[in-house]
Amino acid sequence: MEGLQKFPPRPTGAGDMFQLFRDGAPRTRASLVSETGQARSTVAARIDALTAVGLLAPAGEATSTGGRPPSTFAFAPTNRIVLGVDLGATHARLAVTDLAANALAATQAPLAISDPPERVLAWVAETGAALVAEAGRRLDELAGVGIGLPGPVDHAAGRPVSPPIMPGWHGTDVPGILHGMLGAPVVVDNDVNVMALGEHRTVCPDEQNLLFVKVATGIGAGVVMDGELRRGAQGAAGDIGHVAVPGETDTTCRCGNIGCLEAVAGGGAIADRLRRGGAHIDTTQDIVDLVRAGDIAASQAVRQAGRDIGLVLATSVSMLNPSRIIVGGILSGAGEHLIAGIREIVYQRSLPLATQHLRIVTSRAGAQAGVVGAATLVTDRFLAPHSIDALITVKEDT
Amino acid sequence: MEGLQKFPPRPTGAGDMFQLFRDGAPRTRASLVSETGQARSTVAARIDALTAVGLLAPAGEATSTGGRPPSTFAFAPTNRIVLGVDLGATHARLAVTDLAANALAATQAPLAISDPPERVLAWVAETGAALVAEAGRRLDELAGVGIGLPGPVDHAAGRPVSPPIMPGWHGTDVPGILHGMLGAPVVVDNDVNVMALGEHRTVCPDEQNLLFVKVATGIGAGVVMDGELRRGAQGAAGDIGHVAVPGETDTTCRCGNIGCLEAVAGGGAIADRLRRGGAHIDTTQDIVDLVRAGDIAASQAVRQAGRDIGLVLATSVSMLNPSRIIVGGILSGAGEHLIAGIREIVYQRSLPLATQHLRIVTSRAGAQAGVVGAATLVTDRFLAPHSIDALITVKEDT
Repeated sequence: MEGLQKFPPRPTGAGDMFQLFRDGAPRTRASLVSETGQARSTVAARIDALTAVGLLAPAGEATSTGGRPPSTFAFAPTNRIVLGVDLGATHARLAVTDLAANALAATQAPLAISDPPERVLAWVAETGAALVAEAGRRLDELAGVGIGLPGPVDHAAGRPVSPPIMPGWHGTDVPGILHGMLGAPVVVDNDVNVMALGEHRTVCPDEQNLLFVKVATGIGAGVVMDGELRRGAQGAAGDIGHVAVPGETDTTCRCGNIGCLEAVAGGGAIADRLRRGGAHIDTTQDIVDLVRAGDIAASQAVRQAGRDIGLVLATSVSMLNPSRIIVGGILSGAGEHLIAGIREIVYQRSLPLATQHLRIVTSRAGAQAGVVGAATLVTDRFLAPHSIDALITVKEDT
Repeated sequence: MEGLQKFPPRPTGAGDMFQLFRDGAPRTRASLVSETGQARSTVAARIDALTAVGLLAPAGEATSTGGRPPSTFAFAPTNRIVLGVDLGATHARLAVTDLAANALAATQAPLAISDPPERVLAWVAETGAALVAEAGRRLDELAGVGIGLPGPVDHAAGRPVSPPIMPGWHGTDVPGILHGMLGAPVVVDNDVNVMALGEHRTVCPDEQNLLFVKVATGIGAGVVMDGELRRGAQGAAGDIGHVAVPGETDTTCRCGNIGCLEAVAGGGAIADRLRRGGAHIDTTQDIVDLVRAGDIAASQAVRQAGRDIGLVLATSVSMLNPSRIIVGGILSGAGEHLIAGIREIVYQRSLPLATQHLRIVTSRAGAQAGVVGAATLVTDRFLAPHSIDALITVKEDT
């Protein structure tokens, strides 16, 4: 009858217990007994198993309250490495990280993503291998390769799907090609999801429900609910560039619809508006520079873009009830104007229950969000409880 | 080195293996060996353990291909029961179901939800206990009680949060009170989430990403992503009644904003519009009756409401990329007019990638979606892999 009174708690195997250590803090056996409610012998056996596979290491002695000071143990993230790759339209960033996504070596270079994928991926593999060597590590220490691409990706298969700015990549077996060159598992996602993940894990890992919005030449979002990226049925979740802006009836988009968010509030739209006012603008970065130089027309245009984005996000706030909206992308560098416009409308257009704990903030992971997120695609899988339990089983069987 | 080549597969303990049986189909040991890739001895031990706790039962013999015909096993959902409770503004539905959410006994009755919660919950417990007896079962067979309430609910605590139509319920410890009366675990959620869950599990369990939209006097949604209800940071996900309808600049809502979805397309708004045209309308059901009777003004008004709802859903389709939108609630009974309006706008206003596999359909679970969903709140927890593994451990320890 006792089982009827409550549902059983989640189990805590070695892989589950390890998750406690991902905060980086050292722990004693005694503190784990009280944290997990498990027997001291169970905790000791799990620490031994996690140490044997190199995920935990002794971390010195805790302060004694009398008698022999107890040993502490901590996450040993440097025993394996990860290659994180962030490919944009015209640039590439790569980083070799440890299992806690700390960069051990990093590089960036110009890149033409419209080049044939085989050539780009060969360059990625070559540059990645050199970076591993630069970090003083070996390729056989790679737990995996994570890569973000600037276009729609079938995440399960790791293949781009009709990516507008890199049409030659459609259907390319990115995991197969890179695995062949680097010998490690490969995880692929689109750049906005990768930025969302990087920001989530490095800046606000405790926020379980958030929206990351990239505002640049294009506009896109990454959706985190219940602590995980949510990609939707075809991996297209967050593709909000062609959502209708409420009340916008004039602007025709290149997609043929009226009032699409990207056509109203993207970098290209803002640039067109400022050019009509006589400003000289070549790239989206030029808009940011104008705002930073105190140009009033540019500041007003960016704030209005924020309001238009806010109208679309207000609907998403009601539908998803996030606790944080993070605004990234080049235009988020234009001071407070963009985010002020977004805040103005989201708070005005949402019910108090949905916004009472909502924070709308600028990305803090910045340019590193991409490579960190790409590395996190790998560590999330490598350090998942069931992966660790499997690693321990393999070790014990040999 | 082999572990570097791929990430380990998900584990399949007894609880995981049991999930295969939830489709109701009988299986032989040999078919499970091929389905799971596990050793015959492992499969046999897990079948024995699942049979010992009453979740599986022998299901006769399979057709032999020569030699002694192999035994088959199947989910035995009737060994435990669940009480599902769906409370609306003016009615209550209760059902006793088995662990597969099949109704064993059901009842409904008028109810004033604005009555004091202690009185309503005492009635629920009394009616539920009588229903258990009517089904020829005992209260100690209850795996749990699931209950849907017509207002915002803090799902983790099971307490209503400032529910507009039942203000006296704010903060009520619904699980504590019902557990005290019925002696089983209690799970509480809002009525739209419960309907979404009921529809998902009974009509389209294989769709992992869907939106359920209730269109009645009010308008609300339930969000399923990656196979689970997503409730957001404060449990307010899906509260789309006060989202701004794009292009709508005239209608002032009781919340003080302009152009809220509920003020434009809810049952009250449609009724007001038709009354101004001379129609006699008391309830939202009267609108449905007029449409069914062929009233042109009513049909046009419902179709326009569908278009307005479609404008809001188009944004959600881009943000969430669901594979199905299910339209329920009283007004979904008004023939094809409502859904035709929604389809017209969603397909027009979304990118092809997001809608190529999107189906927009009327709820098929109908009035039963609520009680089935409420029962499913319980079975989802009771039959979760870790719950089953715990149940087996308890059994083996005694």
